[in-house]
Amino acid sequence: MVVKVYGPVYASPKRVMVCLFEKEIEFETVPVNLLTGENRRPEYLKLQPFGSLPVIQDGDYTLFESRAIIRYYAKKYKSQGTDLLGKTIEEQGLVEQWLEVEAHNFNPPANNLVLHIMFSPSFGITRDENLIKESEEKLAKVLDVYEDRLSKSKYLAGDFVSLADLSHLPFLNYLVGPIGKEYLIKERKHVSAWYDEISSRPSWKRCLEYGFPFEFK
Amino acid sequence: MVVKVYGPVYASPKRVMVCLFEKEIEFETVPVNLLTGENRRPEYLKLQPFGSLPVIQDGDYTLFESRAIIRYYAKKYKSQGTDLLGKTIEEQGLVEQWLEVEAHNFNPPANNLVLHIMFSPSFGITRDENLIKESEEKLAKVLDVYEDRLSKSKYLAGDFVSLADLSHLPFLNYLVGPIGKEYLIKERKHVSAWYDEISSRPSWKRCLEYGFPFEFK
Repeated sequence: MVVKVYGPVYASPKRVMVCLFEKEIEFETVPVNLLTGENRRPEYLKLQPFGSLPVIQDGDYTLFESRAIIRYYAKKYKSQGTDLLGKTIEEQGLVEQWLEVEAHNFNPPANNLVLHIMFSPSFGITRDENLIKESEEKLAKVLDVYEDRLSKSKYLAGDFVSLADLSHLPFLNYLVGPIGKEYLIKERKHVSAWYDEISSRPSWKRCLEYGFPFEFK
Repeated sequence: MVVKVYGPVYASPKRVMVCLFEKEIEFETVPVNLLTGENRRPEYLKLQPFGSLPVIQDGDYTLFESRAIIRYYAKKYKSQGTDLLGKTIEEQGLVEQWLEVEAHNFNPPANNLVLHIMFSPSFGITRDENLIKESEEKLAKVLDVYEDRLSKSKYLAGDFVSLADLSHLPFLNYLVGPIGKEYLIKERKHVSAWYDEISSRPSWKRCLEYGFPFEFK
């Protein structure tokens, strides 16, 4: 049974897809267009009652929330493909910690930048210059903490790549590309090396082939 | 070695404490006062570089982010106390899904209500009536999804209590108490029964004995 991933051009589905590639799990994608409101249709809301992306269907099993899906597959196929969880329970705790940091410290300001710089016309959002400025300042402080952390270990949770690193890729990709904030990454030596390393993984390159909501670069 | 929990009067540390009580893990608390900026002091930032609560110290092991900490202990002591993870990998996936929903759908509007109704004078935040109204509307829609879900299973992830349920307790407690939004819970039959069930657990009652940032009720 091939896993179905609803997405696939948006950022959160790519968080799932990059991990499925690392885990060598076969999947197919089902396009959902947020711009025409396909995510608000009753048949989609039966799968994801909040109308968010992504959802996966794996036989009879349906699961939503990208970071729940990647934990599920990393655990289910622990010994297949790249181990993304860490070996010991203590390593796994640090993977969880940095995955939470991605969700609660990195993602909110990055998401504000993406929404207000890239998506505002298409989603009918009024571009808020103050919020853009504040979000960039917040993100810079978060990346200062990352710089310190990544001066001590190659990846966020230690010297092994994990869910915590890969989970950053979709929004890092927007930041260095269409958002025009590449300098936030490049001016931090260890963050920059970390970004170069994770974004050059074949798993991520395969994700990029699925395209984006808009053409860019 | 007794676990140290930095907190303990705020909401996020109580998310950890309620799970430690369920897992029958002995701990002691270390007070951190956000109102006097103890969380911005260099010695605290060494433990938690973003200045957030909680952090735990367990011998030489330090971990932050409440939902990372509860996953760590639920896994480390899986067979001790209440199993909060689910039996099968599929059940565990659903626990992760609803824990993510708590973090990304329930918590942001609930947190806005708490900040703008309860904490605004103390944290120097200007009370934003529009944000309060919008957040209540968002939270009501989230709780409509919960009502549907809880009409089909006793707890969020299934017919077993899990991290996903307990993780809601600190902010549910604020909503029904000092925030004055008890009706959001009480007007939804299944949400109300679920709240009554989880908030009457001895583990949560023991958390309440640690007090709150302010006197209320």
